[in-house]
Amino acid sequence: MPHITMPPELMPGTPGLMRYRPETGRPLSQLAEVLLRGEHSLSRADRELIAAHVSALNDCRFCLHTHGEVSAQQHAEGRTLVDKVLADPASAPISPKLKALLAIAGAVSNSGHDVTEEMVEAARAAGATDTELHDAVLIAAAFCMYNRYCDGLAAVVPEDPAAYVPMAAMIIREGYSTCATGH
Amino acid sequence: MPHITMPPELMPGTPGLMRYRPETGRPLSQLAEVLLRGEHSLSRADRELIAAHVSALNDCRFCLHTHGEVSAQQHAEGRTLVDKVLADPASAPISPKLKALLAIAGAVSNSGHDVTEEMVEAARAAGATDTELHDAVLIAAAFCMYNRYCDGLAAVVPEDPAAYVPMAAMIIREGYSTCATGH
Repeated sequence: MPHITMPPELMPGTPGLMRYRPETGRPLSQLAEVLLRGEHSLSRADRELIAAHVSALNDCRFCLHTHGEVSAQQHAEGRTLVDKVLADPASAPISPKLKALLAIAGAVSNSGHDVTEEMVEAARAAGATDTELHDAVLIAAAFCMYNRYCDGLAAVVPEDPAAYVPMAAMIIREGYSTCATGH
Repeated sequence: MPHITMPPELMPGTPGLMRYRPETGRPLSQLAEVLLRGEHSLSRADRELIAAHVSALNDCRFCLHTHGEVSAQQHAEGRTLVDKVLADPASAPISPKLKALLAIAGAVSNSGHDVTEEMVEAARAAGATDTELHDAVLIAAAFCMYNRYCDGLAAVVPEDPAAYVPMAAMIIREGYSTCATGH
């Protein structure tokens, strides 16, 4: 049960919290929209993988299931690939660049100070641009926020993974701003 | 030196990063504006204290100095009070409600799962409303993002505490959106 009194008709997880307080919900959902769906050299599916990886490290089941499913529905190899990355990014069948960015995101999940020059150089050697480095760090940092927002208020978390399938489809169809604020 | 190539004329810390990439800078600064300066039952000085406390726990010197100074300039008791809170919120001369909200913020800085029913009940018993609980959790969660964004990209951090005095005055005068995006 959430720590605050929320109307039962609100959506579960962070979207429900964003609708509960639209003043903060608007910038929160706009940030997710730009970071995960805006024009980018990294695919939407790959950016969602970074979000899901950080959510797994922070043990936030709502964000892990949501963004894992959004990634799976947009990846050619689907759920199988997402599960491999979540189990062990280093051995998953993904590009060296995405592996290096996931390593940086994992460091950020513990502390910004844990990102080393060596990690950044490894990502650059694998072809990462400044914008990709910037956004990998910011996606990881942002999910350290969304994860804590969701669990710190004990938002409702559906147990059944199937519940995330239509929610992910809605996000892919309508975007984060629409899902989180209703317009 | 930052991990990415940034024009030297950009401001230090997170404001410089927000100007570096305005697409994400806009929602990031709007979130700070609503959380720390919007209409609220908690004073701006008290909300800045929550931000400074979390930044201290995350060892983010830029955010600690900035928000500690913004709080000090707006608190009747100024720097002395801010330093007492940062040293030990539990023994500082602040209201039981603010102490309870700072305890929740401290828990959030480690994990959302660390916020207990007992902490929430203590805050309610001290008079905290749902919106105050919501915003204390979200301010703490948001600074877990801003701190990691700043340090994860190794943004420039002025060493001299005096450098933060005019920056804090500009934030108080113009707000976060203007400072971070230039308009």
